[in-house]
Amino acid sequence: MRVHVQNDPDDPGFLITPDHWRRATAAEPPHAVSFGETTEDFLRVRDEVELLVGPPAALRPLRALLGPKLRMVFSNAAGVDGLAPLDWLPDGVVLVNNRGTHGVKAGEYVAMAALVLAARLPALMEAQREGRWLRLPAPPLAGRHALVIGTGDLGGAGARALRVLGVRVTGVNTRGTPHPDCDAVRPVAALDDLLPEADLLVLACPLTEATRGLIDRRRLGLLPAGAGVVNIGRGALLDDAALCDALDAGRLGGAVLDVFPVEPLPQGHRIWRTRNLVATPHLSCDDPASYNDRSLAILTANLRAWRAGEALPNRVDPARGY
Amino acid sequence: MRVHVQNDPDDPGFLITPDHWRRATAAEPPHAVSFGETTEDFLRVRDEVELLVGPPAALRPLRALLGPKLRMVFSNAAGVDGLAPLDWLPDGVVLVNNRGTHGVKAGEYVAMAALVLAARLPALMEAQREGRWLRLPAPPLAGRHALVIGTGDLGGAGARALRVLGVRVTGVNTRGTPHPDCDAVRPVAALDDLLPEADLLVLACPLTEATRGLIDRRRLGLLPAGAGVVNIGRGALLDDAALCDALDAGRLGGAVLDVFPVEPLPQGHRIWRTRNLVATPHLSCDDPASYNDRSLAILTANLRAWRAGEALPNRVDPARGY
Repeated sequence: MRVHVQNDPDDPGFLITPDHWRRATAAEPPHAVSFGETTEDFLRVRDEVELLVGPPAALRPLRALLGPKLRMVFSNAAGVDGLAPLDWLPDGVVLVNNRGTHGVKAGEYVAMAALVLAARLPALMEAQREGRWLRLPAPPLAGRHALVIGTGDLGGAGARALRVLGVRVTGVNTRGTPHPDCDAVRPVAALDDLLPEADLLVLACPLTEATRGLIDRRRLGLLPAGAGVVNIGRGALLDDAALCDALDAGRLGGAVLDVFPVEPLPQGHRIWRTRNLVATPHLSCDDPASYNDRSLAILTANLRAWRAGEALPNRVDPARGY
Repeated sequence: MRVHVQNDPDDPGFLITPDHWRRATAAEPPHAVSFGETTEDFLRVRDEVELLVGPPAALRPLRALLGPKLRMVFSNAAGVDGLAPLDWLPDGVVLVNNRGTHGVKAGEYVAMAALVLAARLPALMEAQREGRWLRLPAPPLAGRHALVIGTGDLGGAGARALRVLGVRVTGVNTRGTPHPDCDAVRPVAALDDLLPEADLLVLACPLTEATRGLIDRRRLGLLPAGAGVVNIGRGALLDDAALCDALDAGRLGGAVLDVFPVEPLPQGHRIWRTRNLVATPHLSCDDPASYNDRSLAILTANLRAWRAGEALPNRVDPARGY
């Protein structure tokens, strides 16, 4: 297959190198592969390329420039909302994402966030900065109830990590399809009934037209007083101004966010300085040292399925958007 | 049995109330019980008291005032270093502690500390205060190696929580006695050989004459660059000035401390403001809402063993100091 890897020079920690490619494809039939960063780099090989690989930010400018032999686009990210709407995808070209890459760190991040919120660490660290010995009581995390929205790679890993810590987990997905790491799964249509029972709300679903603004001001208001919020999905799932208001008012207990309405989150943004809010720079489900190896192993598994004429495990449904 | 409960009014979140006592002893033969806070309160009943109950801070001033009928002293804390040396204990009087009370929160605290250090959260939160989008790479916690010093209630719970997160755990105790939640256990005499292999050092042992200053400047220097340190035992186990030096120099990756050389840690102390150091106010293994119920359930289990003429599971050995 003729492969082109398009990298995003603005995200230098995640460049796919010839070494990554070689390691991932050692057991593959030989592919001719080129690497580029600019539109010109792509245009030089466009007419021959059958498989186009890269992160959404690098693929985005190429959407209107695709060549005649293209068969597959591989997003080196699980969320393809940056390529939406997916109507640019030519007939017969499949879009594949790398879901499965993020599980280990996503589980650890959700566990950390839940423990940090249960221990009231943001308030303790604020007291620390003032040199104040503040003995805030904090019941254990074990025994609490979490609502995990999205039961894919991220949400499943989060649910698994929470249950290991003794948390009761209710998953939420489109149709309430059961998940082995959730105590129960309910359809998203039941959300308003579920929010008042959640000590912890974890957002781990893709951003699509159906999920944009899912947790709006009204729904944040349905959470019980003192509840915590964790977002590892996408910033636009959540009304961040309403979240900051609820934290400032002390109505919610705390929040841990790894994703934001604009990234990088600009200096001076209210999110940076809202109390009981921990903001991490959209890296917490990623381990740069292993990311591309994990991701390309998922690509090659999909290539094997492709050659065998089987369904592609990571194929994105353009209508659903994930 | 004639019981006196001596409370510490300076620790109002942990007062043992008549309700606590009633709940704990519902299945006990009736005890006459009095409650007090001052030395005068105790002296009024001293001549009759057979069982004296209280936290070390409340028992400490009574050590030279014990009455003739005393048979048992129950420390409403696991660490009895505040009562050391234990030479004040009259012949035939047993000292019992509440080890077993702290496990759930200790496990959660160690898990949180390990995840916070692996994710480099202290540095991310410092960047957050400055409104800086700092994409620090952080490999997962899973697969790292922790050295847990002390394999009692705290260390055992910590080891269990770490292994669930995929951490390889080497426990350390006096003689290298195996522990079911550790991959291996080595004697404390092997410490110098173990420290260079530890990504994470967790201190969870009692403070005794044998452990005071155990992790001194030289031993901190044996840890590999970037290692993390967690202390839930006692502040005096560790040379805190050497720890702060190593953090300031960037030689160690971070530290999470719940115990300190002086408590409350005074305002202005260097520990409050050392970078990559999280300081929590010696509460993180305690849940005030359940503490006394858990603790007194342990006391009544020991009273049952006492009446049955069996060995007391929580008896403190005055020679060992725990």
